[in-house]
Amino acid sequence: MKVAAVQFQPRFGEVEDNLRRAAELVRANPGAAVYVLPELFTTGYLFRDRAEARALAEPAAEGPTLRTLAQLARELDAVFVAGFAEREGDCVYNSAMVVSSSGLVGVYRKTHLFLDEKDWFDPGDTGFRVFEVGGVRLGVLICFDWVFPEAARVLALEGADILCHPANLVLPYAQSAMRIRAIENRVFTVTANRVGKDERAGKALAFTGASQITDLDGSVLASASVDREEVIHADIEPTAARDKHFTPRNDLFADRRPEFYQRLQTRTA
Amino acid sequence: MKVAAVQFQPRFGEVEDNLRRAAELVRANPGAAVYVLPELFTTGYLFRDRAEARALAEPAAEGPTLRTLAQLARELDAVFVAGFAEREGDCVYNSAMVVSSSGLVGVYRKTHLFLDEKDWFDPGDTGFRVFEVGGVRLGVLICFDWVFPEAARVLALEGADILCHPANLVLPYAQSAMRIRAIENRVFTVTANRVGKDERAGKALAFTGASQITDLDGSVLASASVDREEVIHADIEPTAARDKHFTPRNDLFADRRPEFYQRLQTRTA
Repeated sequence: MKVAAVQFQPRFGEVEDNLRRAAELVRANPGAAVYVLPELFTTGYLFRDRAEARALAEPAAEGPTLRTLAQLARELDAVFVAGFAEREGDCVYNSAMVVSSSGLVGVYRKTHLFLDEKDWFDPGDTGFRVFEVGGVRLGVLICFDWVFPEAARVLALEGADILCHPANLVLPYAQSAMRIRAIENRVFTVTANRVGKDERAGKALAFTGASQITDLDGSVLASASVDREEVIHADIEPTAARDKHFTPRNDLFADRRPEFYQRLQTRTA
Repeated sequence: MKVAAVQFQPRFGEVEDNLRRAAELVRANPGAAVYVLPELFTTGYLFRDRAEARALAEPAAEGPTLRTLAQLARELDAVFVAGFAEREGDCVYNSAMVVSSSGLVGVYRKTHLFLDEKDWFDPGDTGFRVFEVGGVRLGVLICFDWVFPEAARVLALEGADILCHPANLVLPYAQSAMRIRAIENRVFTVTANRVGKDERAGKALAFTGASQITDLDGSVLASASVDREEVIHADIEPTAARDKHFTPRNDLFADRRPEFYQRLQTRTA
């Protein structure tokens, strides 16, 4: 099975144009069963405030992002995991949707917000979800969720074969961390990062590309440039992730000893 | 404060000789406040069976390892964290002792046993412990515990400033994983690995050295060779680990959302 990360550069606020250009990039790189697109790929990242994020956000089930991706999913018989700004009632979430040729499969709302996202978005309320599509189990993390080992771990314990990781990374740590998330959970990982800058209202953020697909042993199957739009892909056997043997006598899940992990349920040190 | 990892090559079964040579190596490298020695540095690793492990094991509180390290601790006014085979009643543990100039501070028994250790040792029953010595909080992991993110996380939540990590590594993953353990928990890490081979009863294991000390951001402060006995060290400010800010607005502990981590308490997928 071929999985792909779509490294893309949105133009801030140009939702329809971003959808058109991202769809072009995907159509020029057909053949994958799963495409992961960056966090907030339709809107860009550097919002002025919550009102602006809300104005650019859309309901998951009836917005332009679902329309575009559902159309692409039908055309290419593929599944899409893609970050977008989600509006629901008074809330605004930094979300990712999973879309198949049948339409919307589900939504994950980012659990751990980064920096000024705390001004723009509500903290996600979905928890960590695994979506089974065509026999493959997709777990979804968004960007800064990478730093919390609990996030990937919960998804793996819930049965994820592949951690799909839409991102807008500005720091250099996530790629090496995702290799360790792969090793410690024996899952595949697909990080789709954006490139380019957002420059708005006297602020600027540069995004670092280097989208990455890793194998179960953390080795890098595909890696993107730091500055160009491109689609990277790798051939994997997703169900291989269901065997958690790290050695013939060490199953990474059976060897866990949760009776000694109770401290993880408490909030602070 | 100076912390050190003592990369050592034990000779299998030669407990008194290993203690003598390890003490020489430490005395030739004075000046650290904390020395971490490898897993099972007194006995070697490749036991034939449980009976042999038991025969070479010692009670924590009254064996030659404590005698040697307590003497060294007094001489050098330092703390030692060192792996040894522990006997208690009918049980045999792959343990680490923490020893100060006042004597035995505490013992950690390896929670997650690797490969044939399951034949030789009982699984540890101590859970993850932080030992405060001279105002510094030491958390202890042993070797394969590295692969379970819960282990380092529990220690960090319990207040560890430094993860002390005696090891007998045979695989190439732990060093990069410990860099991520540092980043995700904002703790210092000191991995003390052994070098050389154990060849016994038709089996052989080669140990991979590359002992390592990391900073709070995962950068490598000191790194050892893959094949020589040596002591590496770094100057750190341990209490800096108590500030968990990853960004001005992201405290890695305050930002945790344990209400979404309940799956971690269950045993299997």
